[in-house]
Amino acid sequence: MNRQTIPKGKLLIIGGAEDKGKGEVDMAYHNPKFVEMEILKKLISSKSENPRIEVITTASNEPQKQKKRYKEAFQKIGCENVGFMNIQTKTEANDEKFVDRINKAETVLFSGGDQFKIATILGGTPVANAIKDKYFLDKNFTVAGTSAGAAVAPEVMIQSGGTYEALFESDLKTGGGLGLLEGCIIDTHFLKRGRFGRLAQAIIRNPGQMGIGLGEDTAILVKKGHEVKCLGSGMVVIIDGREITHTNINEVKDDGAIYVDNLRVHLLVRDCKFDIETYELEYPKPRS
Amino acid sequence: MNRQTIPKGKLLIIGGAEDKGKGEVDMAYHNPKFVEMEILKKLISSKSENPRIEVITTASNEPQKQKKRYKEAFQKIGCENVGFMNIQTKTEANDEKFVDRINKAETVLFSGGDQFKIATILGGTPVANAIKDKYFLDKNFTVAGTSAGAAVAPEVMIQSGGTYEALFESDLKTGGGLGLLEGCIIDTHFLKRGRFGRLAQAIIRNPGQMGIGLGEDTAILVKKGHEVKCLGSGMVVIIDGREITHTNINEVKDDGAIYVDNLRVHLLVRDCKFDIETYELEYPKPRS
Repeated sequence: MNRQTIPKGKLLIIGGAEDKGKGEVDMAYHNPKFVEMEILKKLISSKSENPRIEVITTASNEPQKQKKRYKEAFQKIGCENVGFMNIQTKTEANDEKFVDRINKAETVLFSGGDQFKIATILGGTPVANAIKDKYFLDKNFTVAGTSAGAAVAPEVMIQSGGTYEALFESDLKTGGGLGLLEGCIIDTHFLKRGRFGRLAQAIIRNPGQMGIGLGEDTAILVKKGHEVKCLGSGMVVIIDGREITHTNINEVKDDGAIYVDNLRVHLLVRDCKFDIETYELEYPKPRS
Repeated sequence: MNRQTIPKGKLLIIGGAEDKGKGEVDMAYHNPKFVEMEILKKLISSKSENPRIEVITTASNEPQKQKKRYKEAFQKIGCENVGFMNIQTKTEANDEKFVDRINKAETVLFSGGDQFKIATILGGTPVANAIKDKYFLDKNFTVAGTSAGAAVAPEVMIQSGGTYEALFESDLKTGGGLGLLEGCIIDTHFLKRGRFGRLAQAIIRNPGQMGIGLGEDTAILVKKGHEVKCLGSGMVVIIDGREITHTNINEVKDDGAIYVDNLRVHLLVRDCKFDIETYELEYPKPRS
């Protein structure tokens, strides 16, 4: 990916556990501003009358469960034109029939599971390339991903980590993602799974990247590859590592605990906007 | 408490689940720099030969379990002179016999449980006043607190909160602590229980306070009421809210989600130092 090339398509990066209309978001009972299925609805709004959505369940170890869940969810918001691509091998990821389906879809949604499966099974294959090409060229195309499907979108992906009460260099595994998004690292289920430390560690390692932690039922909509708007019921946490002045990350041998200063952190919610390139923030106007 | 009055005693504020020599700290198996029972040992080092420790189990709903646990732990490091004060009523907190015992102790340790119990049962009583007086006047006296016992030490205490994937004004309950420490708010079990959001919210509400989040088996030793050194196997997270420029905390009615920008965050580990008054940080010298 190249900064000179501005993608025409959109990305919808979701923090996992987006509301599927079954009352599973506990905040629903708490928050009068809760919007049922806000995020999945976003996937079909401003599309043609009967948009084709392809759900890619590569990350999942329970693809049949995911299929049932998303079929019901999309039905609930009036969308029946949903396909499921359970690509689990490299051979399948090279199959032209899947490439054709990508080219006919208006939306692709990567389900949750293990991001490492998406990166290693789909990375560099004709299916991944078709998604990328269409994302760059087609303004009506949206690539969405939730949980693992969100983590895998950027060039740098958190694979695992955040196991202990301190940060250890050997604990965090990062790898290459699908490269649909530049300049940031994504983490998901951010509040409930207490992932502040692990995303911070990824940013200490890659201080030129913006850390974006997404709560559950929370998403960012990315236009032109860098213009971002927050949506959903939870929080979007930005970690900016550009002002770090002290860290021992280059000195700790093996398993010494890592320290770092001056992370700049922003906690954003629905309707806040930010720019991944310039780090500029914009807030919703107060409602009276 | 008054900034002009510098306490002569020390505070040891512990993030909960300090190692008691039974292999309960999972990092022990991970980290070659792990020191067994580092924190509890600190409580008896630099003291007289047979220091008297009084453990106050007011916060706990299982005081007998706590008693057994701490008795065994202190025995393990050669300390047999341990008393237990299971004060569960206001009447007991007014009992002169407990005041006498405080006055004869070199260390008081508040156990974990519910900080609201400590604040409401002990707050303002002769027992609390005896602890405070001795802490201010006696340089050989240490007040320690773990988990609930740590949260209750400052003037402002987090009672509960951090329930959802976003911050809601109505979710966070804060109250008054014992007032042994000025200028900060303490949270504990910080990484494992994912409490970044809840401490951040307490700081948005009280931006003049320094947020201090302590991992498990992690502690800060406070001298002169503001000079701090980190110890233990986990992480100390500092949240500095003095540079906030945008937040909707004054506009959100009822249950709108809160946003905030420009929290400055430092992640510290054993041997890092900081000052609660000046926010200055000091790092351990690199070891070769």
